[in-house]
Amino acid sequence: MRVLGVDPGLTRCGVGVVEGVPGRPLTMLAVGVVRTPADADLSHRLLAVEQGVEQWLDEHRPEFVAVERVFSQHNVRTVMGTAQASAVAMLCAARRGIPVALHTPSEVKAAVTGSGRADKAQVGAMVTRLLRLAAPPKPADAADALALAICHIWRAPAQNRLQQAVARHTVNPTKGRTA
Amino acid sequence: MRVLGVDPGLTRCGVGVVEGVPGRPLTMLAVGVVRTPADADLSHRLLAVEQGVEQWLDEHRPEFVAVERVFSQHNVRTVMGTAQASAVAMLCAARRGIPVALHTPSEVKAAVTGSGRADKAQVGAMVTRLLRLAAPPKPADAADALALAICHIWRAPAQNRLQQAVARHTVNPTKGRTA
Repeated sequence: MRVLGVDPGLTRCGVGVVEGVPGRPLTMLAVGVVRTPADADLSHRLLAVEQGVEQWLDEHRPEFVAVERVFSQHNVRTVMGTAQASAVAMLCAARRGIPVALHTPSEVKAAVTGSGRADKAQVGAMVTRLLRLAAPPKPADAADALALAICHIWRAPAQNRLQQAVARHTVNPTKGRTA
Repeated sequence: MRVLGVDPGLTRCGVGVVEGVPGRPLTMLAVGVVRTPADADLSHRLLAVEQGVEQWLDEHRPEFVAVERVFSQHNVRTVMGTAQASAVAMLCAARRGIPVALHTPSEVKAAVTGSGRADKAQVGAMVTRLLRLAAPPKPADAADALALAICHIWRAPAQNRLQQAVARHTVNPTKGRTA
């Protein structure tokens, strides 16, 4: 199972590809960050996120995309941009018929560290260990993207197969009716 | 000047096309709503919004897209979906090099009614009058989309020309660096 994890953001959107199955050692295929200039127009920043995510999908052909579920109780200033960047990532996956799963930050932390309240350093340390890397991926957004992908591989494989089957049958959703 | 106004939403995304210049009677070219099924997966709802907006852009070729600026102090449950639908609309415009402007609800109300605190009925009544329609457009999201387009035509035409010139030179923004 090959999963692209996306830690959404406008300034830094973490992306990481992990391959594996539950109960076997996991392999990191790639990790990085899609950046957009903070002084650009919002619509152009979203376009840059789209181009970045498209490039990752083209290069790594993931079977699933796991995106961090954004909550609005976070910092009010940044949460809108985060929600919008996540929308672009979900849209890119949906266009290709790739199933999208959303995982909350605490689900991700619990999956890789055993505690839903683990800090960034702990998540980074476990990602490094689980993927047998020489050093924790930087920046934290990149490590978080890998943690999302790992979380997705480990959570409910049966559910993933179901979701994949559903996605295959709903690649072309009902078009919005226009008048 | 032809403007597509977008009142973003996942369940109902209002869309309306208005043509005109400040100081002259305005013309409504089309109005409608892009709907997505509430029981669909979020990624597929975003895809349906994209398909709907693309269809409106194809059919009406607007020179500007005016989108309601989303604030996070609104209803926490719906605001994330609204932000995500607005991201899709902005992205569709940016891909075509169409300048996107964001207007706040109070700017729109003030533009069409003279008061930033006008209610839905008042906005609907003024949209009906300004566009010389037989009846207020339904649902309210459709009327709001027309109000957004009117607001855009009336606000700072010089600024619009500048923005259009800038957009022409930044159709291909800096790609997100990927590692």
